[in-house]
Amino acid sequence: MLQPLTEIAPLTPTLEAARRASLKLASAPTEVKNRALAAIAGGLRTNSAAIIEANEVDLANGVAKAISAGLLDRLTLDAARIAALADAVEAIIGLTDPIGTVVRGSSLPNGIKISQVRVPFGVVGVIYEARPNVTVDIAAIALKSGNAAVLRGGSAAENTNRVLVAVVQAAIESAGLPAESVQTIDPFGRAGATELMKSRGYVDVLIPRGSANLINTVVTESTVPVIETGAGVVHVYLDESAPEQWAIDIVHNSKTHRPSVCNALETLLVHRHAAARLLPAVLDKLTASGVTIHADARARSLYPAAVPATEEDWSTEYMSLDISVKIVDSLDEAIAHIRRYSTGHTESIVTNDLANAERFLSEVDSASVMVNTSTRFTDGGEFGFGAEVGISTQKLHARGPMGLPELTSTKWVVRGSGQVRA
Amino acid sequence: MLQPLTEIAPLTPTLEAARRASLKLASAPTEVKNRALAAIAGGLRTNSAAIIEANEVDLANGVAKAISAGLLDRLTLDAARIAALADAVEAIIGLTDPIGTVVRGSSLPNGIKISQVRVPFGVVGVIYEARPNVTVDIAAIALKSGNAAVLRGGSAAENTNRVLVAVVQAAIESAGLPAESVQTIDPFGRAGATELMKSRGYVDVLIPRGSANLINTVVTESTVPVIETGAGVVHVYLDESAPEQWAIDIVHNSKTHRPSVCNALETLLVHRHAAARLLPAVLDKLTASGVTIHADARARSLYPAAVPATEEDWSTEYMSLDISVKIVDSLDEAIAHIRRYSTGHTESIVTNDLANAERFLSEVDSASVMVNTSTRFTDGGEFGFGAEVGISTQKLHARGPMGLPELTSTKWVVRGSGQVRA
Repeated sequence: MLQPLTEIAPLTPTLEAARRASLKLASAPTEVKNRALAAIAGGLRTNSAAIIEANEVDLANGVAKAISAGLLDRLTLDAARIAALADAVEAIIGLTDPIGTVVRGSSLPNGIKISQVRVPFGVVGVIYEARPNVTVDIAAIALKSGNAAVLRGGSAAENTNRVLVAVVQAAIESAGLPAESVQTIDPFGRAGATELMKSRGYVDVLIPRGSANLINTVVTESTVPVIETGAGVVHVYLDESAPEQWAIDIVHNSKTHRPSVCNALETLLVHRHAAARLLPAVLDKLTASGVTIHADARARSLYPAAVPATEEDWSTEYMSLDISVKIVDSLDEAIAHIRRYSTGHTESIVTNDLANAERFLSEVDSASVMVNTSTRFTDGGEFGFGAEVGISTQKLHARGPMGLPELTSTKWVVRGSGQVRA
Repeated sequence: MLQPLTEIAPLTPTLEAARRASLKLASAPTEVKNRALAAIAGGLRTNSAAIIEANEVDLANGVAKAISAGLLDRLTLDAARIAALADAVEAIIGLTDPIGTVVRGSSLPNGIKISQVRVPFGVVGVIYEARPNVTVDIAAIALKSGNAAVLRGGSAAENTNRVLVAVVQAAIESAGLPAESVQTIDPFGRAGATELMKSRGYVDVLIPRGSANLINTVVTESTVPVIETGAGVVHVYLDESAPEQWAIDIVHNSKTHRPSVCNALETLLVHRHAAARLLPAVLDKLTASGVTIHADARARSLYPAAVPATEEDWSTEYMSLDISVKIVDSLDEAIAHIRRYSTGHTESIVTNDLANAERFLSEVDSASVMVNTSTRFTDGGEFGFGAEVGISTQKLHARGPMGLPELTSTKWVVRGSGQVRA
């Protein structure tokens, strides 16, 4: 039952409105939800100028506060990006609606029929930072999966998010669904985020998206169940038998294809018997792409241009053109290193040894374990999910890339004709 | 990556031993795990006298502390109960091992093969109270699902649990698996439970089993992901068209079959047009079984023997021969009452109206929603799961009765041949 949130009253009306909206959304037919999605896409295109205007205010504030170039880039919405956002919302129309799917079912010996059916969570809270595209992404994904969304996007994008949410709400209402299906709590400031984390009973699941710091705060402080997404200290291990060209290509692609994302490579491990054969060419190709090599002593003896790796490097998610490199004596040492330093996101082995490949797949405990591919493939789009809510690095509920079904719960529907237990 | 638990050091060696054991368990073949289960069942039978002796110490302490008759009964292990525990462990041998099951998979357009495979969580923490049977149940279920278990059983059963864990550990070791697969932290006292709740990174999931208070504490204080089990303010709603005999039987069975468990009925709602027809007979049968009726004013006018219901009654999980009764004006009012007071466990409608049945199934948001059956059927055994870890009342990961698959996570296994992202 719902306990009144006496200590944290300011958010209550918003959360109660979200709850009421969620009841309508839970039984909304797919075609109504799709109509709302089409209206959101249309609304984004029609209101592109107003969105850009609001975004310019946020960008000017960001420049005044001297935020980093990377943050400014994430914060920026121009006409092309808004059009891409609208396209992404339209793509969700084509995805299968998970709600109502029967996961399993049976007839019991006494004639009772049971079935486990997908239902929305109800109210999904999302806490993220300065990425206005997430506002639209999450709104669309939540809507399609029948969930009401309560968004905390952070002060840096406050003006942009306010306009985006207004556009989304108008679109949802035009399809006959409650405007409160998507709400922002940015006006409540930091206190709003704190309240959201304590709103157990009002919010069914909380998804933090952003820095390791943000995720850690949410995980530690939230009483609402959390789906942890994100941080990736990702490893590639070059086994003794690793084919040279695969080693070069997979390491280069994993590190440089998009260094700022969570499935990018951070630490390269190399078997000592393969190091002399592979490292110079592998590291030359990285260096040619501007990557700084942080290497242990053995690797530096083979590649003197590298800078010394510190203990801290092994647990660092650079998200930049940096890589740590270590030579290991065995597959065992590689697995032990990964167990110690990995965040459990993605690890890949490059090998031609079948037994070693199977051991790596079995003994490395990460959301995604790979043989002979780039780590960049741990991705909802690449996996064919169509939309991605994030990549879960926890073991409960969802692990790895999350699509629409990962934003649902289930309930058991039990149909009888007067049966009682003997 | 693992952060050293500097503030909560005492438990660290236990948790590290559990982690090491979990690595062995994760790759243990089903037949080895089954051999350990058979050894546990044998060990329980062989050591029955020693278990009873330790249990008598706990019972004497309980009597000295004047704990309730109900608690004393839960605490008691006699020869028959130990034999039943051994049988229950043997029954788990026959259940399908969920580990290694491929949940789904596909070949991507670029030739990469992906499959989502069931893996153990790793280390499962369980906090419960004075029920030594849970020690054996959970140990067996965790073992079969490849998880190491760290148990906090509470001081009232400390002597019994120490002997039970010793028996279990000897059995597991005799099958060639690590003794530390199952450990008790009872010697660390209440501080141990607090540490366990903060052991994120060491413990993968925490399952509280027991009173609403215990569950609430764990949910609020734990930084480890929690699966919430338990509390059931369970409703039956007698619709206008409810057949009389079904109404009588289902209410009686739901309330009196086993009043102390979470799927027992607590609140009866009756449509006002059915009240005069149904209530006297339904409540007479309850009264004949010793049930105290707590009724609202309208129900009391039809059944004067009832005591007045207070506001508190509607949110009370009696777990005893008490029931609250309320007359409602409509299905809408029944659903609204359930939304306000239910803990989301189980609700059942008795009706012959198809449209009302479908609305109830769709609009009541509980783990188990029923038409024309006793609420006592929300049960892993009745659902055919063979073993039950508990009944989840949360929406994340597992909802409703949990069997072996609910004690697992998944990982994505990705096999390529040199693919990189374009």
